[in-house]
Amino acid sequence: MPTQVQNPAVATALLERFRTVRAATLAFASPLSPEDLMVQSLPEASPVKWHLAHTSWFFETFVLTDPAIGLPGYQPFHPDFRWLFNSYYNALGEMPEKKLRSSFSRPPLTDILAFRAHIDSAIERLLEGNAEAEALRRITLGLEHEQQHLELIATDIKHALFTNPLHPAYLEAPATPGNIAPPVEFIPFAGGLTRIGTIPDATDPLSFAFDNETPEHTVFLQPYRLASRLVTVAEYLAFMDDNAYSRPELWLSEGWATMRAAGWQAPLYWQRDPATSTGWSIYTLGGLHPLETLAATPVCHLSFFEADAFARWSGCRLPTEFEWEHAAATLSTTQGNFLESNALHPLPAPTTNGLHQLFGDTWEWTASPYTGYPGYKPLPGALGEYNGKFMSSQIILRGGSSVTPTTHIRATYRNFFPPSTRWQFSGLRLAQDA
Amino acid sequence: MPTQVQNPAVATALLERFRTVRAATLAFASPLSPEDLMVQSLPEASPVKWHLAHTSWFFETFVLTDPAIGLPGYQPFHPDFRWLFNSYYNALGEMPEKKLRSSFSRPPLTDILAFRAHIDSAIERLLEGNAEAEALRRITLGLEHEQQHLELIATDIKHALFTNPLHPAYLEAPATPGNIAPPVEFIPFAGGLTRIGTIPDATDPLSFAFDNETPEHTVFLQPYRLASRLVTVAEYLAFMDDNAYSRPELWLSEGWATMRAAGWQAPLYWQRDPATSTGWSIYTLGGLHPLETLAATPVCHLSFFEADAFARWSGCRLPTEFEWEHAAATLSTTQGNFLESNALHPLPAPTTNGLHQLFGDTWEWTASPYTGYPGYKPLPGALGEYNGKFMSSQIILRGGSSVTPTTHIRATYRNFFPPSTRWQFSGLRLAQDA
Amino acid sequence: MPTQVQNPAVATALLERFRTVRAATLAFASPLSPEDLMVQSLPEASPVKWHLAHTSWFFETFVLTDPAIGLPGYQPFHPDFRWLFNSYYNALGEMPEKKLRSSFSRPPLTDILAFRAHIDSAIERLLEGNAEAEALRRITLGLEHEQQHLELIATDIKHALFTNPLHPAYLEAPATPGNIAPPVEFIPFAGGLTRIGTIPDATDPLSFAFDNETPEHTVFLQPYRLASRLVTVAEYLAFMDDNAYSRPELWLSEGWATMRAAGWQAPLYWQRDPATSTGWSIYTLGGLHPLETLAATPVCHLSFFEADAFARWSGCRLPTEFEWEHAAATLSTTQGNFLESNALHPLPAPTTNGLHQLFGDTWEWTASPYTGYPGYKPLPGALGEYNGKFMSSQIILRGGSSVTPTTHIRATYRNFFPPSTRWQFSGLRLAQDA
Amino acid sequence: MPTQVQNPAVATALLERFRTVRAATLAFASPLSPEDLMVQSLPEASPVKWHLAHTSWFFETFVLTDPAIGLPGYQPFHPDFRWLFNSYYNALGEMPEKKLRSSFSRPPLTDILAFRAHIDSAIERLLEGNAEAEALRRITLGLEHEQQHLELIATDIKHALFTNPLHPAYLEAPATPGNIAPPVEFIPFAGGLTRIGTIPDATDPLSFAFDNETPEHTVFLQPYRLASRLVTVAEYLAFMDDNAYSRPELWLSEGWATMRAAGWQAPLYWQRDPATSTGWSIYTLGGLHPLETLAATPVCHLSFFEADAFARWSGCRLPTEFEWEHAAATLSTTQGNFLESNALHPLPAPTTNGLHQLFGDTWEWTASPYTGYPGYKPLPGALGEYNGKFMSSQIILRGGSSVTPTTHIRATYRNFFPPSTRWQFSGLRLAQDA
Repeated sequence: MPTQVQNPAVATALLERFRTVRAATLAFASPLSPEDLMVQSLPEASPVKWHLAHTSWFFETFVLTDPAIGLPGYQPFHPDFRWLFNSYYNALGEMPEKKLRSSFSRPPLTDILAFRAHIDSAIERLLEGNAEAEALRRITLGLEHEQQHLELIATDIKHALFTNPLHPAYLEAPATPGNIAPPVEFIPFAGGLTRIGTIPDATDPLSFAFDNETPEHTVFLQPYRLASRLVTVAEYLAFMDDNAYSRPELWLSEGWATMRAAGWQAPLYWQRDPATSTGWSIYTLGGLHPLETLAATPVCHLSFFEADAFARWSGCRLPTEFEWEHAAATLSTTQGNFLESNALHPLPAPTTNGLHQLFGDTWEWTASPYTGYPGYKPLPGALGEYNGKFMSSQIILRGGSSVTPTTHIRATYRNFFPPSTRWQFSGLRLAQDA
Repeated sequence: MPTQVQNPAVATALLERFRTVRAATLAFASPLSPEDLMVQSLPEASPVKWHLAHTSWFFETFVLTDPAIGLPGYQPFHPDFRWLFNSYYNALGEMPEKKLRSSFSRPPLTDILAFRAHIDSAIERLLEGNAEAEALRRITLGLEHEQQHLELIATDIKHALFTNPLHPAYLEAPATPGNIAPPVEFIPFAGGLTRIGTIPDATDPLSFAFDNETPEHTVFLQPYRLASRLVTVAEYLAFMDDNAYSRPELWLSEGWATMRAAGWQAPLYWQRDPATSTGWSIYTLGGLHPLETLAATPVCHLSFFEADAFARWSGCRLPTEFEWEHAAATLSTTQGNFLESNALHPLPAPTTNGLHQLFGDTWEWTASPYTGYPGYKPLPGALGEYNGKFMSSQIILRGGSSVTPTTHIRATYRNFFPPSTRWQFSGLRLAQDA
Repeated sequence: MPTQVQNPAVATALLERFRTVRAATLAFASPLSPEDLMVQSLPEASPVKWHLAHTSWFFETFVLTDPAIGLPGYQPFHPDFRWLFNSYYNALGEMPEKKLRSSFSRPPLTDILAFRAHIDSAIERLLEGNAEAEALRRITLGLEHEQQHLELIATDIKHALFTNPLHPAYLEAPATPGNIAPPVEFIPFAGGLTRIGTIPDATDPLSFAFDNETPEHTVFLQPYRLASRLVTVAEYLAFMDDNAYSRPELWLSEGWATMRAAGWQAPLYWQRDPATSTGWSIYTLGGLHPLETLAATPVCHLSFFEADAFARWSGCRLPTEFEWEHAAATLSTTQGNFLESNALHPLPAPTTNGLHQLFGDTWEWTASPYTGYPGYKPLPGALGEYNGKFMSSQIILRGGSSVTPTTHIRATYRNFFPPSTRWQFSGLRLAQDA
Repeated sequence: MPTQVQNPAVATALLERFRTVRAATLAFASPLSPEDLMVQSLPEASPVKWHLAHTSWFFETFVLTDPAIGLPGYQPFHPDFRWLFNSYYNALGEMPEKKLRSSFSRPPLTDILAFRAHIDSAIERLLEGNAEAEALRRITLGLEHEQQHLELIATDIKHALFTNPLHPAYLEAPATPGNIAPPVEFIPFAGGLTRIGTIPDATDPLSFAFDNETPEHTVFLQPYRLASRLVTVAEYLAFMDDNAYSRPELWLSEGWATMRAAGWQAPLYWQRDPATSTGWSIYTLGGLHPLETLAATPVCHLSFFEADAFARWSGCRLPTEFEWEHAAATLSTTQGNFLESNALHPLPAPTTNGLHQLFGDTWEWTASPYTGYPGYKPLPGALGEYNGKFMSSQIILRGGSSVTPTTHIRATYRNFFPPSTRWQFSGLRLAQDA
């Protein structure tokens, strides 16, 4: 790795971003007790305390202790933390089983917070010195990683609190005012040859994209139409009321089997509630609300199978990730309802014409399985385990959600989860052949 | 469904094909005892006796008893058979659980054979009369269905006999003479815009493709190279000897977990055998043979995960299904080592230059998850459950195998199985970016 | 093992018994097809073909090939059969997994029947010669073993045929005439010190008891009362109609959990049937019969948990095995409804006074877990695995059933099964404290 | 329930006991953090926080809110706590699933401690007033219940801390001085008719026994011999070194299957450790210690299956619970190494002659399955679910352990667990026929 003199302004900008992102994580955790931070209520979720530690571990492992680009003289906070807070990087050796995360009463939260402060101060020293370009790139990656985990903190604690028999709220909040969603319009796109993916600017260490967004390449698209907004709670209720969970012809075979085995009868977080006019309440990070007060908001916490069945029932289909990205390229901004709005839940679409809610509100299930782009190469070394090894049996989601940090999203961003996943803020937008 | 007068020559040709295909099924089953035909050794396999019945049920259900196009006055063979031999068509109502197939001692084999004869005679009468074009189309579909099940009979009985502690052969046969496989050559393809899929000739009822091969559409391909032959047993042994089953960096995450949980250390049907010079024997339909006698033959009975790991270890990748089909379009025939060769196992590649073994020998795992082509529409009614509902968490295989009937394959044919599947004759061909 | 000259009359008597018992097994299997003999519909059941082989294996393994007492010059039928038909004798080395039994299409039935004939002829030669006393003892044990498996053949094929979606009968038979069961009387027993178990006559090689019936020993019993007959189908229906399967207070905790997880709502083989006046039909070896035609017959195919819950609901309890044996000692015969009656199902109790149905009809669940008697010693060698190693988490049943061979039962006989077992002919008799 | 005037001295004595027992629970929890109190590392264990709440719930449910005997004007602490902290009393209605206990971050520990204080003060008021005799009986039961849960707190937190990848100690402590265990002596007992069980003094509300220790009744015992002390770690290591975990002939069939499926190769909490002279370390509540420093201490954390196999290997057997109680009746005290010694681990036996370690150190697996005594009747109402419904598939243990509170044990006390249980302090004593 050749040395490279940095523009000090770049390091200063990165330091500013570092402080902002790290502080956002702690701020989100602050209303929670040390006991709340311990809970792991799903095998695929983690305790918040673990997220706080693991995001710091990332900087220690991939930046501070790297002999070529790290902080000279850096002392690791604790010798056990290197393996204790590894998530899934086989190349880094031994790691605790994921299912053991719920037993992490030790180290105590106070140690984890001290670990974070230790890392913060070391990264600040590194950035105030003459850091290598590769160090800046890795710190940038570490901040994207931290933002991914901030979103996971939100989804994991939502599930943890919901699993608690008392269903406490993260923060008590009134439901969004219940306006009416605007009618859906299907917006046509001509398709043809289009460029998909991105090439980060190699001369700018702050320019960032995940390896799975590269290389940029050409795709041929047939003409198609995309719905102007996300599917709403009211529309999904109509699907349920049409007996959709009992009609196999609406479902993929795997979806039908999964749904029946799990006993799903509604999206995650919907609960039957005779005290409401619709018979349902929906659990949000702001507590339980009658469905009718959320009817105009986008439906979320759907599996891919439910999104796919809804689209089939509607006589439509899900868009491919290429169609979605092609359409997103027509927008000038990525504005939307993200974590910083503090709504912590999707909001109704605006009533103006045009393509809405592409960014924020809910992740949008696409029809595209997660695969590598033509010519895809993972990062070298352990960081190569970040994305590439998950390219099987997962589905692409696009656009970010109401708990995604604003500065984390891009039109080329590819999120991915197994098709049965429901604890993310996942919804859908309809598409049609032209 | 409007009536349509048929060219009698078409019906005659179809009748000829009907007799050939139906006879081939029985001929393959003939060396087996009624007890052999009862065995179900895998949840995803079926007893041969069930296959014999289900393929007949297909003609009774979708042709003979159809009020619009069926045989006037047709009497169903037995009132229970309609639900008893349904495989997975939810639209047709109640069906026995797949796991109960192993308890089907009744109806006895003699009744199943009588059922087949009853169906044969009814279809012959229908084809000798003035059959509707739609009837000819459905019979054509039924024959493709029968050929798929003939291949399943071969794979299911192979597993059943192997599971028997005595490992009896289907038919004792010597191993293929052990010649040396020719060196691999990587053949370049320019890519660009290419047409994928097919459109059956609507005016010819014998013209056939499955709905999942349609519609024909345009795909843009980057330049690529394809290996001139399949990967061999000897090459796969080198991969194993390089400790591949213990190196997580070679595997997809799901593949690593699947392989470790299942305890795989070699392809299915490879057994450690201290009496051989390589330490391994391979079970074939012709019995157990020392690996060394099969070293030049294509490796088969791999999961997608193993094929993918081998490709990564080789510094290559799997081809997409579009690359495969684009390359196949350059060949003038689909000749290859199919069921009718009676080898019942892959054979070594020829030593001449060029693209070999694209058809026959082994199904080739591609890099492509199974999805619908742009504009894909399933057939109407229960037949719509044939292909479309399986479009999740499965991977495309191409080219047919040594137990595929010769007349069943096409360059556009898309086979699909979950990525952990190993009991099919599944191998791989390497690909590279150009 | 010292040689011992035998009384020829003893060997002749044993030969007679050998022929009778072996012929009974084949006679029971004769109405079944080779395909029926292949079915294994429960993990704890076996295909009939396997039973036919395993019972012959027992004589080959423990008698004919024993160097001290076997048949000089005996040639084993087939070298693989020694491990192929081992059931669970770890001391004898490798054995196939029990779950693989359903794949035993090979060896074919014809070989199994030839194996039986080979064994029969060898044992006959041994008994016509000058056999050792220990050989006679082992043959006697082998015949008791064969009779146990004859009962298992009846229970296993009943389950296999019931599992078949067509529910065919073993032999079509009318239901027992539906008379009324006599009222229950509770017969008092004084208890006190009593002798339990038995001591076989060491000087008589035909005198037999299983090791678990020994040693004879003293037990102290409190006074108690025993019902004069078994609980009937009508009485059990009243228990169900009192909502018993939804009332946790009636059940052992393990029983409640087992029953809920399995979804039990009635005894095994009871099926809801709107065509009957009671709403239920019962499957028997003679086919399906309306419950009302069997109302007076003893209920059977209950788990221990259901028998225990019924007793609690009745304000009674199950008898201990010691109470049962103490009561049985007051009877002069072991007459009852056994296999040879050909009813193949329990029959109503006689209307006379006194203790009825103690033998035959149904096995009676007792309150006693299966443990060794004080001073219990298993047989030496592999035969020691016959009974002793199963002495945990099983419950004692007493008295034999309608598919137990008549000559197989004794007042001291201890049958045992896990408490969730339902595929045996298991019912109950009530008991009370005096 | 008729009123009954109480002797004030009785209520005063009970109040004193109430304060002592309740304080002991809090004292044991005091070295642990709120995060430690959250961990549930086994399905059959519970978080300490839950134990603290549930033991208080017991007094609120069965004493304070009982209309006949409760505290007039008592206000429940929180309306949800009645179902939230129910363990398994079906008669009391809805309860949270046991597996959800690990998500109990709310109510927070501070609320649980306030709940305890609320209960303490209410019970004190009740006892300072004119309490009914039945109230005193229920409070006495509640204290026995609390002591059982104190022992579970010790076993559950031991497992929770051990599961943590860092293996922290509850309290760092040196290993017991490693003296040599005295030789085993087998002490003869004549047997004969003996009285088993107990009758609490109905006129003394503080006289206590669980319903499963009653009624007192007569049992006949054969002569037997009992080992003078418990089996030691060194003796158990010899059993392991004799390849015991690979020899099926030493094991019950269920034990062999359980042990192989779980991969056991040593008692729970034994870890291979190349840094020790024996190659093993043992985790205790005082941290990890080399096995050699604990060689003379009783082995513990054995399943019944391991205890049974060890006894068989020794040419001995386990005692029945009746033999154990008959022998215990010869001792004048129940002194031993209990929780209050603060060893928190078994200690070596004294070197004097006689019967040692019958009480304390480790629970002793007996040969006796858990059943009701003749004439057994559970308590009326929901309290009847305390013991009786668990009388299947469990084994009796006797004598208490080093984490049992001293005042909790009696010679007639019957503990019970499934035979695969290892997280209790369970060991064994050998027995022989005379």
